[in-house]
Amino acid sequence: MARMKPRNALYAQSGGVTAVINASACGVIETARRHKNKIAKVLAGRDGIIGALTEDLIDTSRESASAIRALRHTPGGAFGSARYKLKGLEEGRAQYERLIEVFQAHDIGYFFYNGGGDSQDTAYKVSQIGQKLGYPVVCIGIPKTVDNDLPITDNCPGFGSVAKYIATSIREAGFDVASMARTSTKVFVLEAMGRHAGWIAASGGLAADGPGDAPHIILFPEITFDEQAFLTRVDATVKRHGYCAIVVSEGLKNQDGKFVAEAGTRDAFGHAQLGGVAPVIAELVKQRLSYKYHWAVADYLQRSARHIASKTDVEQAYAVGKAAVQFALNGHNAVMPTIVRISSKPYKWKIGMAKLADVANVEKKMPRDYITADGFGITRKCRTYLEPLIKGEDFPPFRNGLPQYVKLKNVAVKKKLRTRFRP
Amino acid sequence: MARMKPRNALYAQSGGVTAVINASACGVIETARRHKNKIAKVLAGRDGIIGALTEDLIDTSRESASAIRALRHTPGGAFGSARYKLKGLEEGRAQYERLIEVFQAHDIGYFFYNGGGDSQDTAYKVSQIGQKLGYPVVCIGIPKTVDNDLPITDNCPGFGSVAKYIATSIREAGFDVASMARTSTKVFVLEAMGRHAGWIAASGGLAADGPGDAPHIILFPEITFDEQAFLTRVDATVKRHGYCAIVVSEGLKNQDGKFVAEAGTRDAFGHAQLGGVAPVIAELVKQRLSYKYHWAVADYLQRSARHIASKTDVEQAYAVGKAAVQFALNGHNAVMPTIVRISSKPYKWKIGMAKLADVANVEKKMPRDYITADGFGITRKCRTYLEPLIKGEDFPPFRNGLPQYVKLKNVAVKKKLRTRFRP
Repeated sequence: MARMKPRNALYAQSGGVTAVINASACGVIETARRHKNKIAKVLAGRDGIIGALTEDLIDTSRESASAIRALRHTPGGAFGSARYKLKGLEEGRAQYERLIEVFQAHDIGYFFYNGGGDSQDTAYKVSQIGQKLGYPVVCIGIPKTVDNDLPITDNCPGFGSVAKYIATSIREAGFDVASMARTSTKVFVLEAMGRHAGWIAASGGLAADGPGDAPHIILFPEITFDEQAFLTRVDATVKRHGYCAIVVSEGLKNQDGKFVAEAGTRDAFGHAQLGGVAPVIAELVKQRLSYKYHWAVADYLQRSARHIASKTDVEQAYAVGKAAVQFALNGHNAVMPTIVRISSKPYKWKIGMAKLADVANVEKKMPRDYITADGFGITRKCRTYLEPLIKGEDFPPFRNGLPQYVKLKNVAVKKKLRTRFRP
Repeated sequence: MARMKPRNALYAQSGGVTAVINASACGVIETARRHKNKIAKVLAGRDGIIGALTEDLIDTSRESASAIRALRHTPGGAFGSARYKLKGLEEGRAQYERLIEVFQAHDIGYFFYNGGGDSQDTAYKVSQIGQKLGYPVVCIGIPKTVDNDLPITDNCPGFGSVAKYIATSIREAGFDVASMARTSTKVFVLEAMGRHAGWIAASGGLAADGPGDAPHIILFPEITFDEQAFLTRVDATVKRHGYCAIVVSEGLKNQDGKFVAEAGTRDAFGHAQLGGVAPVIAELVKQRLSYKYHWAVADYLQRSARHIASKTDVEQAYAVGKAAVQFALNGHNAVMPTIVRISSKPYKWKIGMAKLADVANVEKKMPRDYITADGFGITRKCRTYLEPLIKGEDFPPFRNGLPQYVKLKNVAVKKKLRTRFRP
C-alpha cells in the first residue's frame, strides 16, 4: 500500500475567545507535530475563518516548541478569532466554494474549527460541501464557549475558568462588603456574562459555603425578573446579615421578555442606557430600599482571566484539541470531541465523540432543577455539577509581578491564489 | 523596679478595606502574642472605631493561632471597618472622652489604628486628648490605603495588590480584545479606583511591555480630560494596532472640574447617570468614532482580589503591623511605621517611622513627571517606582477550586460600662 503524502491542517478560532482556547490550539499543534508523517503543517486562519476565506494563513511551524507550549497558559485567541457566521449552504455557496478553493491551494486535508454552536454548524457544512465539490476534507469541531451551552458534551472548555473567576470574585467582594456594611455599602451587585443561559451566574453560587455567605441572590436569564420578590429578598437579607451580595446575569429579562439592561433607563440624549444590568439593579435597590450600593461589571475580565483559570478547564481544553487531531488521524470525520463525566465525586471524566450534525445549532439551557424553587439560588444538584469544573489551579508563569503571556510571530503563508475574496 | 502589669491593646480597622489590611492585623496580633508580659490581650473594635465608641469590643485572644495566621491571606476587614471620621477636638470632645472612658474600662494601654489619612489624624488626636484627660495611651497609626496617597511613606499597604490586579486585568483583557478586534470590539475601557489620585490607573501602565501593548491610553484625575485629544489618540491607536485599550480613573475630571462620571448623562427619571466613568467614555467613543466598545468596572473586585495579591504588598502590610507593636513596646507614641525605599533595582526596603502630626491630613499626589507629556501614559520614572510594588505572588490556599478565607469567631468582650453612646 502506497504511503500517503502528509497533508496540511487548518486550525481556526471562532467567536468570543476564552482564557483557555489557546490551550486547545496548543493541544492541536503539539499533537500534530508528533504525527508529521500524516500532518505536514498546521496552518492557522488569521482572525479565524476570515483568514481562511481571504487566504490569510499563518504558518504555525515557524513557532518554537516553547512558544507553542506557552499557548497553554495564554488567554485570548493567539491567531485572532472572528464573530463571523457563514451563511446556509445555498445562500452562502460562494463562501464555501472559496474555502474549498483555499484548502485545495494549500493542500489542506484537515480542518479543525474551535468554537461554539455556530462553528460546529460551519464545520459540519464544510464537511458536506467538500464531498460535493470533490475535495473531501476531514472536518473536526473543537468545543469552546464560556456560555457552556453546547449539547452532548458535559461541559464546554472555557466555562470552568470563567466560573472560577466569578465565584472567586463574589467571594472576595463579599468579604469586603461584609466588613464595611455598617457604615457604607449594603448592597453589592456583580454582573456576569451569559446572555441566553445562566451557567456563569450560577457559578457565583459556589462561593457560598454556608448560610449567610455571599452571594445571597442570583438572578438568572431563565427566571423572569420579579421586582417585588427581589426587593423583598434584598431587604430581608440586609436586615438579617447586614449586607446583600448579588450576582446578576447580563441576560436577565423582565415580564415583557425584554433585557432588563436595555429596558431601563435612557441617557440625556434619549439613547438607551449605556449598558450593564448591574447598575440598573443597583439603582432599583437604591430607589426602593434606600440602601447604599456598589456594582461591578467584569465584562471581558472574566473570560480572559487566565491568572485564575481552572486546572480542570485547562486540561480539558488541551484534551479536546489533542483528541480532535487523534480523531482525524483515526479516520473520523464531521465529529467533535466531547467531555464525558464518569463520576462527580470523585470527579472523573474522559473524552467522548459527538457527530457535528447532532451538535450544530442545539443550545443547552440550565435545567430548572438546577435553580432553587424561589428562583434566587442554585440547588445541590447544580452545585454537584459545577464544583468539579472549577477545581484546581494552573497559574501562569509570572515575571515582574505580572503573568507572562506569549505573542506568536504569526508569519503569513505565501498566497497561492490570484483571486481575492471579500468576506 | 516594679514590673509593669501587662495592659490590653485596642486594634481597629478604618475606611475602605483592602486585600491586605488583615495581614497588618495579623502582624499586630502575632507580634503582641509574643510579648504577653507587656500586652495582655489585643481587643479589636467591631466595625472599627464604632466598636470602640459603643464598647463593642472583640476578644482576639479567643482566636486560634491558625485563624490569626489565616488573616494574612484573607481580604476584607476581619473585625469590620467603618467610614466614620471623628470630629475636631473641640467639636467632638464627647467622642474622644467616650473613647478614653472605654479605654479606661478595658485597661487599654495601646491603640493601633489601621487606616488612611483621616485615621492617622484621629490616632494623633486620641494621643493628645489622652494626655489632657490624664489617661495617657500609646497611639500608633498603621498605614493602609489602596489610594497610595499617604505622605512620608514610600507607598501604602493595600496599593500594591490593587495595582497588580489592574495591571493583570488590562493585560488579559488586552489579549482578548486584540484577538477579536477585526470583527468585534475595537475599544475597551477599564475603570480603576482612585477618586483623587491616579496611582491605581497609572499601575495599569505596567501591563505594557512593548510598543502597541495594552493599555494604550490612561486617563488620570490629575490631567483635565481633553475630549478631542483623547478621541484623536483613540482613532490613531485603532488604525495602527487594530484596537485600543484604555484605563480610566474614576476621578477623571472635565474642564469645569467636574467628575466626568457625573457630568455626563442622566437616566429617564432625570437622575444623574448611574455611576461609572467607563460607560461614559465608551459611549463617547461610540458616538464620535463609531467603534464598537466594551467596558468593565472592577469596583470592589480590585481591592478585595486577594487571590492575585502582590507578595511585596502582603509582606509590607504584615511588617507595618508588626512594627507598630514594636514601636509601642519600645516607648514610642503618636507615630506610624512607614515604608522606606532603599533602592529600586534591586528593590530593597525597610521600616521607618513618621510622626502622626506630620502624616495627618496630608495627601500625596502623583508627581507630574510620572505622567507622560501628552497626559496619556506613565513615564519610566513612574514605572521604576511602581514595578517593585506588584512583585511576587502570594496565592492564598485553595479548596474546591476557591480561595479559602478565614471567618473569625469575633467573640464580644463583656461590657463594663453602664453608659451607652450613639456614635
